Amino acid sequence: MLSERDPQPESPQSGSTGRIVISVDAMGGDRGPAAVVAGMADSASKNPAIEFIVHGPEPELAQLVAKRSELSGRCAIRHAEGVVTMDDKPGQVMRNGSGTSMWSAIESVRNHEATVAVSCGNTGALMALSVIRLRKLPGVNRPAIACLWPSRNPGGFNLMLDVGADIKADAPDLLQYALMGASYARNGLGIERPRIGLLNVGTEEHKGRAELKAAQDLIAAATETGNFDYVGFVEGSDLPSTRVDVIVTDGFTGNIALKTGEGTARLVGEFLREEFNATLLSRFAALLALGPLKRLRKRIDPRRQNGGVFLGLNGTIVKSHGSADATGVSAAIKLAFRLAESGFQDRLAARVASAALAGQDAAQPLEQNRASE
Amino acid sequence: MLSERDPQPESPQSGSTGRIVISVDAMGGDRGPAAVVAGMADSASKNPAIEFIVHGPEPELAQLVAKRSELSGRCAIRHAEGVVTMDDKPGQVMRNGSGTSMWSAIESVRNHEATVAVSCGNTGALMALSVIRLRKLPGVNRPAIACLWPSRNPGGFNLMLDVGADIKADAPDLLQYALMGASYARNGLGIERPRIGLLNVGTEEHKGRAELKAAQDLIAAATETGNFDYVGFVEGSDLPSTRVDVIVTDGFTGNIALKTGEGTARLVGEFLREEFNATLLSRFAALLALGPLKRLRKRIDPRRQNGGVFLGLNGTIVKSHGSADATGVSAAIKLAFRLAESGFQDRLAARVASAALAGQDAAQPLEQNRASE
Repeated sequence: MLSERDPQPESPQSGSTGRIVISVDAMGGDRGPAAVVAGMADSASKNPAIEFIVHGPEPELAQLVAKRSELSGRCAIRHAEGVVTMDDKPGQVMRNGSGTSMWSAIESVRNHEATVAVSCGNTGALMALSVIRLRKLPGVNRPAIACLWPSRNPGGFNLMLDVGADIKADAPDLLQYALMGASYARNGLGIERPRIGLLNVGTEEHKGRAELKAAQDLIAAATETGNFDYVGFVEGSDLPSTRVDVIVTDGFTGNIALKTGEGTARLVGEFLREEFNATLLSRFAALLALGPLKRLRKRIDPRRQNGGVFLGLNGTIVKSHGSADATGVSAAIKLAFRLAESGFQDRLAARVASAALAGQDAAQPLEQNRASE
Repeated sequence: MLSERDPQPESPQSGSTGRIVISVDAMGGDRGPAAVVAGMADSASKNPAIEFIVHGPEPELAQLVAKRSELSGRCAIRHAEGVVTMDDKPGQVMRNGSGTSMWSAIESVRNHEATVAVSCGNTGALMALSVIRLRKLPGVNRPAIACLWPSRNPGGFNLMLDVGADIKADAPDLLQYALMGASYARNGLGIERPRIGLLNVGTEEHKGRAELKAAQDLIAAATETGNFDYVGFVEGSDLPSTRVDVIVTDGFTGNIALKTGEGTARLVGEFLREEFNATLLSRFAALLALGPLKRLRKRIDPRRQNGGVFLGLNGTIVKSHGSADATGVSAAIKLAFRLAESGFQDRLAARVASAALAGQDAAQPLEQNRASE
């Protein structure tokens, strides 16, 4: 019998004053280093327990950091000349990326100066570099990217993974996603016993692809090991649902769902703006409705749930939207801090390792049971 | 060289007074036959050129139809005792479904009494029955379900297929979806030369699954045969985009995207309602904003784009939402009428057949070219 609680983690990496250190790639985002440093300053002013190592061209960063009094004494600069652009191919970056700010930001996690790294750069390159520099956790075959999704649940968010680390996943991969997603939900969202659902085209048992039926059996058998509940198949319409906390799917499907959801929310927002601009009366109504419209915008603003988390590596990486502004970067840093503070990385590693062990133990009797049926 | 225009179709099936006949399954929807007959009456009052054959238990239908003066003399009743429920498995319905209203509704298309059939029933059963009774068009391997998607394009809609006829599709299937989708867009949406995009996790050439790269080559080579333009890979966020008119994908991915989009639009609508109900002032603002909010609701109302169209069979079937009310049923009937009127079915069949021929012709030199490279 495994413990119901995650094991106690080692304490996260602390800076000179006992603060938690976050490694930040200042380059590679669409808005350049000024937006990133502004986001760091924003976070520092709200959170006295945070400290940074920021990576990029020293002269430029020194100037930007000097302008922000909030960062004074709380931000080390690591010089890196090179920048990974959005057009660079992951393969190229793996071969030639060692002088880049992205590489350097990951390096700070690798050598235990920081617990979590944040980057707005090229997702494919960031994942590729993270895998070769941090290596996969023992027992993990495919790392995954997890994202938050606005939901009707009390916390306001559900979790979905994989949203694009890999274009495929077989049944054992989907089981690992369930374990990693449950651990993230527990440590990042504070959900004691997360409810896991498997994304499919219908909720009936007989529906969907063969690997989903196999994954369903594996996940249903791992609820005690993983300390989660399994709610069965869920559909696209369930992503914001109160039936489920963590939605498990392959990275192709998850990426399409994520972008479809974002695109739909943006479309509805545009339609709303058009309708309120349509007539003089409706423009007047919009003035009176400023409050509710502003609160709505906040609830569906992708910047406020900014940050895909790379799971399954020896270290945690938070991928911010490429187009993130200071608000977006600050949201990603907040998420990185929460994960670092909770000791998430060590808890996740322990959970995956114990599940791998339990899987080995369970495999034998399970097969015998089947054979004797 | 193939003609740029679709061939002239045979004229659609006409009723006793030269009207276009639509076959309607009155049963199997969540709201029962009253909602379906109300939708028919609604359509009849708006469209003098429409006539119906309605299928279900005669006594019940006779009573409902008699109450609607709009349907007087324009609606034949075909008695069918059985009802396919939402829980029936497609396999069961294929074996035992011959006495059901769904079977009977398809039969009217099969024996050329009607051009298009409309049903609110169980999608899986409707597709299974349609395939065994109508048979696939020559040259079609997998039939598909196409749905409309609110978009920023002038017509207000993009088209996506497959959204759930089959859980997989290989490259030649995706090519057929492109051909069928282009034909639907031309005849159903009036887009002379539709722009086709292939749904993927990125727009770069090197991204995505192997079958998508193969499908891309096939579709790009068929633009003249199919009378469409190919715009390349599109992402989930492009579903409402002006870059594209028809989005091609496999039925698993398409179904997830469709339900994710619907679910997101519903969530934003709920958030909006909550925010306008939050305070006294915001409730007052909502009163003034009634006009714009109502127009927004109309633009994203799934009932108004109601109707998945089954493509690739010897006959056209429109699947209405199971929960459709009179407005939803009427929208599905309107779509069915437009497709019947345009002679869509014959145009589609001719297009698929000519593409199959062109494909056979092209296969030989293409292989030789590759070998000589």
